Amino acid sequence: MKKEKKENSGKLKIIPLGGLEQIGMNITAFEYEDSIIVVDCGLSFPEDDMYGIDLVIPDITYLKDNIDKVKGFFITHGHEDHIGAIPYVLREINVPIYSTKLTNGIIEHKLREHNMLTKVKRKVVKYGQHINLGCFRVEFIKTNHSIQDAAALAIYSPAGIIVHTGDFKVDYTPVFGDAIDLQRFGEIGRKGVLALMCDSTNAERPGFTMSEKTVGKTFDEIFADNKNHRIIIATFASNVDRVQQIINTAYKNGRKVVVEGRSMVNIIGIASELGYISIPDNTLIDIEELKRYPDEQTVIITTGSQGEAMAALSRMASGVHKKVTIKPNDTIVLSSNPIPGNEKAVSRIINELSMKGANVIFQDVHVSGHACQEEIKLIYSLVKPKYAIPVHGEYRHLIAQAKVAEELGIPKENIFLLSSGDVLELNDEAAAVTGRVHTGAIMVDGLGVGDVGNIVLRDRQHLAEDGIIIVVLTLEGGSGQVLAGPDIVSRGFVYVRGAEGLMDDAKHLLDDTMQHCMDKGITDWGKIKTEIKDSLGDFVWKETKRRPMIMPIIMEV
Amino acid sequence: MKKEKKENSGKLKIIPLGGLEQIGMNITAFEYEDSIIVVDCGLSFPEDDMYGIDLVIPDITYLKDNIDKVKGFFITHGHEDHIGAIPYVLREINVPIYSTKLTNGIIEHKLREHNMLTKVKRKVVKYGQHINLGCFRVEFIKTNHSIQDAAALAIYSPAGIIVHTGDFKVDYTPVFGDAIDLQRFGEIGRKGVLALMCDSTNAERPGFTMSEKTVGKTFDEIFADNKNHRIIIATFASNVDRVQQIINTAYKNGRKVVVEGRSMVNIIGIASELGYISIPDNTLIDIEELKRYPDEQTVIITTGSQGEAMAALSRMASGVHKKVTIKPNDTIVLSSNPIPGNEKAVSRIINELSMKGANVIFQDVHVSGHACQEEIKLIYSLVKPKYAIPVHGEYRHLIAQAKVAEELGIPKENIFLLSSGDVLELNDEAAAVTGRVHTGAIMVDGLGVGDVGNIVLRDRQHLAEDGIIIVVLTLEGGSGQVLAGPDIVSRGFVYVRGAEGLMDDAKHLLDDTMQHCMDKGITDWGKIKTEIKDSLGDFVWKETKRRPMIMPIIMEV
Repeated sequence: MKKEKKENSGKLKIIPLGGLEQIGMNITAFEYEDSIIVVDCGLSFPEDDMYGIDLVIPDITYLKDNIDKVKGFFITHGHEDHIGAIPYVLREINVPIYSTKLTNGIIEHKLREHNMLTKVKRKVVKYGQHINLGCFRVEFIKTNHSIQDAAALAIYSPAGIIVHTGDFKVDYTPVFGDAIDLQRFGEIGRKGVLALMCDSTNAERPGFTMSEKTVGKTFDEIFADNKNHRIIIATFASNVDRVQQIINTAYKNGRKVVVEGRSMVNIIGIASELGYISIPDNTLIDIEELKRYPDEQTVIITTGSQGEAMAALSRMASGVHKKVTIKPNDTIVLSSNPIPGNEKAVSRIINELSMKGANVIFQDVHVSGHACQEEIKLIYSLVKPKYAIPVHGEYRHLIAQAKVAEELGIPKENIFLLSSGDVLELNDEAAAVTGRVHTGAIMVDGLGVGDVGNIVLRDRQHLAEDGIIIVVLTLEGGSGQVLAGPDIVSRGFVYVRGAEGLMDDAKHLLDDTMQHCMDKGITDWGKIKTEIKDSLGDFVWKETKRRPMIMPIIMEV
Repeated sequence: MKKEKKENSGKLKIIPLGGLEQIGMNITAFEYEDSIIVVDCGLSFPEDDMYGIDLVIPDITYLKDNIDKVKGFFITHGHEDHIGAIPYVLREINVPIYSTKLTNGIIEHKLREHNMLTKVKRKVVKYGQHINLGCFRVEFIKTNHSIQDAAALAIYSPAGIIVHTGDFKVDYTPVFGDAIDLQRFGEIGRKGVLALMCDSTNAERPGFTMSEKTVGKTFDEIFADNKNHRIIIATFASNVDRVQQIINTAYKNGRKVVVEGRSMVNIIGIASELGYISIPDNTLIDIEELKRYPDEQTVIITTGSQGEAMAALSRMASGVHKKVTIKPNDTIVLSSNPIPGNEKAVSRIINELSMKGANVIFQDVHVSGHACQEEIKLIYSLVKPKYAIPVHGEYRHLIAQAKVAEELGIPKENIFLLSSGDVLELNDEAAAVTGRVHTGAIMVDGLGVGDVGNIVLRDRQHLAEDGIIIVVLTLEGGSGQVLAGPDIVSRGFVYVRGAEGLMDDAKHLLDDTMQHCMDKGITDWGKIKTEIKDSLGDFVWKETKRRPMIMPIIMEV
């Protein structure tokens, strides 16, 4: 009854709680009356100025405030920027998680690591299956991506159908399973789609992303060219198809394969158990068995293609890997492109490996998992949405997709470049951003979730730039006379050359400052500290052109 | 006499003091008996983990130890990685500097900023001119690069001729002046060249770097497409030809030009004064005059194409530039590619400008200033050196050039991949690395040169990651009784949530620790500090999984 009444006037709210204006931390709420469903629950990695932070998760205050409405999470695929926040968020909002089989396997592994496996309900969904939750119905549609079992979602709401692509590419010849279900996109499009939320990652790139299979051909060539060498290939841990292709080529060439790196071993284990990778008998060997085979009969598949400092390839490159020592005859393949921000780390690895005499191959051994402009046009042309909502990207990527959408004839006013926190209300008659909800990035540092705030970060930045000078002094309780100090200790502040003289001068200066306080009858500790900070700060700036943090500590006996 | 004796047996030493295994800090000594000449004197920019460091200069201990031999510096061109250390190095080794006119103009400007203009002798050299210094003769040869007046050097030594390309590309149609003097490379090659030291920056790239002129055509198209918009173009301050082409296109389109950003204003000023740029009358206007012209009749050329936080474009993007406010109709061109490491900063700028509604063009509006593989092959084929010494690059780039050299028939044993500090001794009969000299990177932080050492950097890194906890206590001189404290203060360490309880617990723990010291009769301050560090460190790790720096300070009254 209620539903009927709202049929034409009700509006759907789309509320991204993260993932816009950045790549990472994808999480979007869909709200209609008393139902909320959430798509994805990802983390992001800390920015360069987030000193000491391990990872960043979305602030889900809005969901907690509406906890009675929240029906479940739908996860499009198993990458960290789509599942990484699950152990943190599901601790606070315990609703079921719906995902495809491999995605669910990866989520289960993650929950197990956090001792939460029994606490969170999970449902495995097949492509084509529809899930009814609240007033929503959600259908999973097969797509292709750099991880298997990726899904687009058709979200049927009383206000209309939303198609969310998830992360996708169009691969007509995938390594495993089927190509993206373009027919279904077309069928749903024919029904009439209210809005398309489409992956923007590669929207700046013209053309079409190549099939994953093309990388297999490249591996065949590399193996043929390097018959007398050990081959070590680094790639993304979660790209099971890539690993499958390396194993296929290794098998054809009679080589044994070692998988190295914790995250890769984990994912290959899950994929293997669930039937997403097929490994010929006697092909995979343990790393301990490596020495029993001649180099030219082995392949090592490893993590660390992004130059991550703790990953296996980094440890090999810097000569601290316990099991693998790089030799001058090794052929090392980086089957990846550097993610923006990782360029220098990747370059460091290439340099280190080259210095050990290895032949490092890093050009044209990778294809992206995201759709380029022609694929984006294809999806728009099948879905033919009324509204376009580019997602999954920094603003530059969103606007690049917006331009593509405009070219395809979608009116500019029907294209929405949302920010995280925007509330987009829409139905067939109108769409507009009508409000904002609280969102944010919660920093995780060690065991602490959200306890590192901006003040702590700012202090860390200050300490990192210029170090700290600590001034301690002991005052007599009654008289306020200086009993000991002021003493000066510094850390992270220059002291190699001439600094001892500098510190002596500083100490004399502080003696004068204290004398000045005494003469003026200044006894308030706050005021004394300010005097110390000001006089020492000016002195240090004049002498060194630096501004270390100055921290006076007063004790009383 | 001496010379005659050595004619056939004497060996030239080539000693790179920087610039190898990195891009930056180029400086190479050439030594023959009692003569040393030095090519270039550059700085490098700090790595990510060099917190608080402004710039890095080479350690020239070897030159100081051999100061009587050092005859002069030859500078190939005016980029910071070739001239930036001059004000620091010439303070210690005051010998003449030889360079072409524009390079000298830029060096003079730098010396003036450091109040050293009258203290350093400079000689302007023309292409084709030969300079005799000690037992060396040095000829300057015209090349092309992303700054005008770049030179290769032919270094005539008693042991043979060395050709050093400097940074170069082959531009058959340069914007200003002549193309690279390929004939002269051929002539010198015909005489017989002992070694070629060739730019490796682009040695990984196949093909040929496009002419600077092609960017001019791109500007013509961009101006034609954006007739109704203000155009803002960011590029490298020192690329005078690029600026010239923007001015040419602006003039053709009847637009006024503003140059913005201190370093660009400086270089354009120098170039203009020395006749390296020709600006039509009434084209250049002051930034204050901008408001007198309609947007579509203006162009702003600005610094900040690398996303540098303090540069003009960054300030425009973040809305804090005093004179230029970005408007939704602006067309903004990044005429540059991000230098590795700057990708995220550049992306941030693109995002910020796009969010202000500007149309940002950043693809294919730039050409490199460095030779790709086909140009490297051309130079090798003209010079036909006996030995190949790839220079100017990280190891990956050096080895890429080594592969090119090998393809061209240079025997592997005649190709030297040097490290900074290697002493390569060579003559027509043999070449080998025979030793090493001390080299290093000296960090400049504020006014301090070399006073920030590894300990300070490591402390800064520790402080940046986890912050600091300071424990202060006052002891009675005779008894060693605790009179005040232990008190705890922290900076950069978590304290937003639950941390007060944590600090209370820590204080109790430290009371216990001090009691324990007292009971055990521990009075040695060093031991007390160790007890404090250990017990507090364990406690904090257990509670938070973090390891802040712990710094006990004891006072005595």
